[in-house]
Amino acid sequence: MRQALSLGRRGLGRVWPNPNVGCVIVRNGRVIGRGWTADGGRPHAETRALDGIDARGATAYVTLEPCAHHGRTPPCAEALIAAGVARVVIATGDPDPRVAGRGIAMLGAAGIEVTRGVCEAEARHDLQGFLLRVTEARPFVTLKLAASFDGRIATATGESQWITGPSARRAVHAMRARHDAVLVGAGTVRADDPSLTVRDLGIDRQPVRIVASGRLNIDGSALVRSIPQAPLWLCHGPDAPAHDWVATGATIIPCEMQGRQVDPVDMMAKLAGRGLTRIFCEGGGTLAASLLNAGLVDELVGFTAGVLVGAEGTPSLGALGVERLSEAPRFQLAEVTPVGGDILHRWRRLPA
Amino acid sequence: MRQALSLGRRGLGRVWPNPNVGCVIVRNGRVIGRGWTADGGRPHAETRALDGIDARGATAYVTLEPCAHHGRTPPCAEALIAAGVARVVIATGDPDPRVAGRGIAMLGAAGIEVTRGVCEAEARHDLQGFLLRVTEARPFVTLKLAASFDGRIATATGESQWITGPSARRAVHAMRARHDAVLVGAGTVRADDPSLTVRDLGIDRQPVRIVASGRLNIDGSALVRSIPQAPLWLCHGPDAPAHDWVATGATIIPCEMQGRQVDPVDMMAKLAGRGLTRIFCEGGGTLAASLLNAGLVDELVGFTAGVLVGAEGTPSLGALGVERLSEAPRFQLAEVTPVGGDILHRWRRLPA
Repeated sequence: MRQALSLGRRGLGRVWPNPNVGCVIVRNGRVIGRGWTADGGRPHAETRALDGIDARGATAYVTLEPCAHHGRTPPCAEALIAAGVARVVIATGDPDPRVAGRGIAMLGAAGIEVTRGVCEAEARHDLQGFLLRVTEARPFVTLKLAASFDGRIATATGESQWITGPSARRAVHAMRARHDAVLVGAGTVRADDPSLTVRDLGIDRQPVRIVASGRLNIDGSALVRSIPQAPLWLCHGPDAPAHDWVATGATIIPCEMQGRQVDPVDMMAKLAGRGLTRIFCEGGGTLAASLLNAGLVDELVGFTAGVLVGAEGTPSLGALGVERLSEAPRFQLAEVTPVGGDILHRWRRLPA
Repeated sequence: MRQALSLGRRGLGRVWPNPNVGCVIVRNGRVIGRGWTADGGRPHAETRALDGIDARGATAYVTLEPCAHHGRTPPCAEALIAAGVARVVIATGDPDPRVAGRGIAMLGAAGIEVTRGVCEAEARHDLQGFLLRVTEARPFVTLKLAASFDGRIATATGESQWITGPSARRAVHAMRARHDAVLVGAGTVRADDPSLTVRDLGIDRQPVRIVASGRLNIDGSALVRSIPQAPLWLCHGPDAPAHDWVATGATIIPCEMQGRQVDPVDMMAKLAGRGLTRIFCEGGGTLAASLLNAGLVDELVGFTAGVLVGAEGTPSLGALGVERLSEAPRFQLAEVTPVGGDILHRWRRLPA
């Protein structure tokens, strides 16, 4: 199962709207087939693992309950039955109402022994984007903030390049590649004119770039210029000149407003509705605060550099309206490691 | 030598104004004596290592050049000669003008083989407080800032207890104990009324508590109350009502001013003049900024918690007046590790 999980992680950021599943077929203690969800979500992991092998009497380890419905591909439960496997070990169930136990029931009805719950916590973590999209109609959100030792992202004069070093920036590109989309606020676009593409990693599939901007009062030339390489989605409010952007090739997503900001809950619901399962938010401080206040941040990634900018610098996080520490959003440490001359720390949402 | 270094570190925070030296005596491959500078700085490590053993023909490993002058104790170089050791291995030389090579010369003149420079970088790091006091007339300064993920030390309403968890706070007490003195600014005293003592570690020697306050416009009741347990030194400007504090038992140290703050360079010179070699500064933000701007911070210690306070919170660091990132103080990562649910990161001054 650990190998299946590891294969499944290859699909992170590449298979939306489908889940990033991994599958290993074992017979007589030997691995005879390995598969993971292909780019774009099809074929599924089981189909690829079974391809070209004789799986009669074998055990299939699969990270998510095999699908039971005829979509654009025939159901994987049927494929496993047709292949003659004797046993299927499943890490976690598929909450998709078209599956939801039916995959397991189909296997059982065909006389296949089914075990579930093996490495379930790990599988649920890896598949969390898909699971949240299905169960809560929102994507998994990682919030990354890279800042100086004292939590600043730019000097008083706006200089921000570079606070963290090249290794940290490279790690950010690798993180972008493991998400379906990269999200920033309008202030970041105005301040940095970023392209938000994944560079220097040799990947052939770019994440969607998303800008949340109530009034679309942005220039975004680097984003527009790179639309041929990677999609650009604009989440905007009702008063934005959205039609002006259609000709650029950007996708226009009208959202509700919450005060002067795009309503983060509505935005995330609309992004999940378009199939996104994993979103990597890179700030700025106002968007980050709005996501945190709405309880939409699942994982927090910090990069901290050994440089001190001082209180006149731009803070990494905007106002939260927190008066008591007991109300402040808290996360649980998952990992901390040096990256080049900086440190990387990952924190996860506290279990509810 | 590594064992001698390790013994020497036992003296951190306990031996000022003397250096924290370690000494190991080895004969025929067996350790026959071990010593480190005793609390208060006397007896010296060599005397203690030689106590009660027959060291004839042995090798002495000592982290700092043995002293050559008659102070309150006879010179250690003489003690080694009298003990009949055949060889002395020294990590680093003593820049004290009363020693400065004379210890090595005395040993050589007595026919003892002397090797120096073994583990020198490590020894210089451990002894840095003493070395800086002798060569630059200032103490080694560690600046600790414990903050939220976004670099805040309190909410808008001033709530600061607790951002970091009990393990981090315990680590802070252990760090205080390895320094000669703990230093804070007046704002911290007003906000927190801290006692700054080392608690729950079973130590019998408390670091000096120092407050930098230009006008001594502080109450400091917890500090005053605990003077029987630990000395309180007040670094103040010319207009402060210093005489009002004498009756409390506090030590009054008049310093020059730099604008509205105590001049950090003059303050550190006066503290070194009183024998302090290692100072642990715990903020607040204004004092931290003044030390950083004066180039007086040798080591930076960060504790980061997985809580987000937002931009209305109190920043960990005050204004630095930095406009360009190239002017901003930079430190080099030395260590990062989880501590309870928080992270601890240590950074060192970049080599000049």
